[in-house]
Amino acid sequence: MYRVESETDVRDMARGAVFLGGGGGGDPRVGALFLIDQMRRGRHPRVMEAAELADDAFVVSIAGVGAPTVLEEYLVSARMLRRLVEECAQFYKRPIDALISAEIGGFNSLMPLAAATEVDLPVVDGDGIGRAVPHIEMTAFSIYGCRATPSIVTDEAGNVSHIFAVDDHTAEAMIRSACVGMGSSIAGAFYPMSGRQVKEAAVLGSLRQTLDIGRRIRTARERQSDPVQELLTYLDVPAQQRFARLLFEGRIVDVQRETRDGWHWAQVRLSGSAGGEPEFSLEIQNEILVARNRGRIVATVPDIITVVDSESAEPLPAERLTYGQRVHVIGYSADPKVRKPEAVAVIGPRAFGFNFDFVPIEQAAP
Amino acid sequence: MYRVESETDVRDMARGAVFLGGGGGGDPRVGALFLIDQMRRGRHPRVMEAAELADDAFVVSIAGVGAPTVLEEYLVSARMLRRLVEECAQFYKRPIDALISAEIGGFNSLMPLAAATEVDLPVVDGDGIGRAVPHIEMTAFSIYGCRATPSIVTDEAGNVSHIFAVDDHTAEAMIRSACVGMGSSIAGAFYPMSGRQVKEAAVLGSLRQTLDIGRRIRTARERQSDPVQELLTYLDVPAQQRFARLLFEGRIVDVQRETRDGWHWAQVRLSGSAGGEPEFSLEIQNEILVARNRGRIVATVPDIITVVDSESAEPLPAERLTYGQRVHVIGYSADPKVRKPEAVAVIGPRAFGFNFDFVPIEQAAP
Repeated sequence: MYRVESETDVRDMARGAVFLGGGGGGDPRVGALFLIDQMRRGRHPRVMEAAELADDAFVVSIAGVGAPTVLEEYLVSARMLRRLVEECAQFYKRPIDALISAEIGGFNSLMPLAAATEVDLPVVDGDGIGRAVPHIEMTAFSIYGCRATPSIVTDEAGNVSHIFAVDDHTAEAMIRSACVGMGSSIAGAFYPMSGRQVKEAAVLGSLRQTLDIGRRIRTARERQSDPVQELLTYLDVPAQQRFARLLFEGRIVDVQRETRDGWHWAQVRLSGSAGGEPEFSLEIQNEILVARNRGRIVATVPDIITVVDSESAEPLPAERLTYGQRVHVIGYSADPKVRKPEAVAVIGPRAFGFNFDFVPIEQAAP
Repeated sequence: MYRVESETDVRDMARGAVFLGGGGGGDPRVGALFLIDQMRRGRHPRVMEAAELADDAFVVSIAGVGAPTVLEEYLVSARMLRRLVEECAQFYKRPIDALISAEIGGFNSLMPLAAATEVDLPVVDGDGIGRAVPHIEMTAFSIYGCRATPSIVTDEAGNVSHIFAVDDHTAEAMIRSACVGMGSSIAGAFYPMSGRQVKEAAVLGSLRQTLDIGRRIRTARERQSDPVQELLTYLDVPAQQRFARLLFEGRIVDVQRETRDGWHWAQVRLSGSAGGEPEFSLEIQNEILVARNRGRIVATVPDIITVVDSESAEPLPAERLTYGQRVHVIGYSADPKVRKPEAVAVIGPRAFGFNFDFVPIEQAAP
């Protein structure tokens, strides 16, 4: 168990979460401000290792659902976070022992921490996928035997739905529709789990990793070192089956985006630093799903594709990518747990309708 | 309390329900077949007067939700109706004393009868509006102080949502969205009410009226009398503030329809019996909302507008109106309870986005 100690820690975690989230999972600013405010009142988030959980502990995964373009405007209010956790305890008819993030993402890995400070619960160091994903069923939780429902979703106005789906694919459709009916931005509790299930199914250590990544970028800047290069060096650890690659360096020259069916969809094109025709492209459904260089696929889900500012290495939420930005595009291999065939079947390119297979980043961009 | 005795009664009720439903509320055939099958097993629907309810009785309103174009394909299964009622009793934590229709409509006034035979409950002679309406909040229940939620909705596959909305307008959005997420066709329990609330808020006697209307049309045919004329004579009772008018007689010459956002939308144009340019038009959102003769509004919601076959006076579901049909269009004033200003505010033309006021049918088509 460790306490998030400082405002700097929170900002580092927010920065690292946008990076690991592949630009998705919402904008972290509102969540970070809420957390910092809580800490000023002496309410520090507590993060526990999964190993510290009793096997029969009761854990729920909480997250915001909606297009990040709408989530940004989402008010993380003490009232609402408290209501969500209280609705949970009442609905599941037992006290909750810990919260866990459904996914790592700008907003979504800070939100459980924010809720936890409000109701004085620990948050497990881990999450459902080790990155952000646009679908509820795309989690290691689901892939390794947990069920997304019964779920509880609520909105700022106080509307509530309890959702019971026959499978997690249907759960996604039902939760996404509930989101549309409730103003396109909801908070929910998903994947009620035992402590034992968390240990088996979750991607572990990912919350700590957001802190490490964010800290690494910040300290490199402070030392006036090259933050992009330091980040790549930190992330690329072949002995742990983690690979990081610089996929492209250049300038955003075209962004086509729309918010539709509760998602943020976009296509982004980039030219090299020397200018010229766009040669690199990104496809986005909340998160960056595919990167192509001169038409050749160089990275795909489940691997993580993140755009960072060329100067500061600040990771950029996908919905904030704009014309003219000078950026580096980094590819980072997903957690080994979500690169297994059974996981790739649920979160690989074909699960999004692309007609090509997952190519591990270390093979596509050696 | 009376028992629905014969298959003929069921078919008469189905016919009358399509008429009172303004062509909406779904196709009655599947519900009628289910009921007839139940009766052959000795399970006759029992219909009770609201006055027979104890003030503290517990009543829920059950209905199918979805575009009638999809509802038609909806399978009324014993398993599903039973599950819905059992989910209700479990959720509300008390046994249900009676069911009531949310609306009168081809499918929706037979469905509570079907469910009631399966779980051996009576159905109250009445409903939420005395006609069919495309929105959950458009009921006398809501207008006179009951709340649509907590609602329970379920689908054929066994998915379930419990919905708690801050108001009935939001309930409509949440239920409609749930419907889209669950394959566009769901069954739900709405408006949990006390017996006293039913007596105060419901439109009473409407189930019996479906039987009377259907029977009147059938017997007129059997006597080779003019069924349209007999129907108009039966319905037009100024002393009871009920008015019926023949709005048009002619042929359908154009139908534009689409299923969108969980509703069936259509525009229908008619020419007079002598042919020539279309001079009469109908606007449909599940139900017929507005009738115009040479551009002049001759009937609007909440009054009932129904198209019947010219020969047989068989009322036609709005989604079955097709090119070439020879029809009579009949206008029938809504129940006085839903013509009051507070009701017209919720279910009048402006509630559907039209920029004109409700004109009572006896004034528009004298």
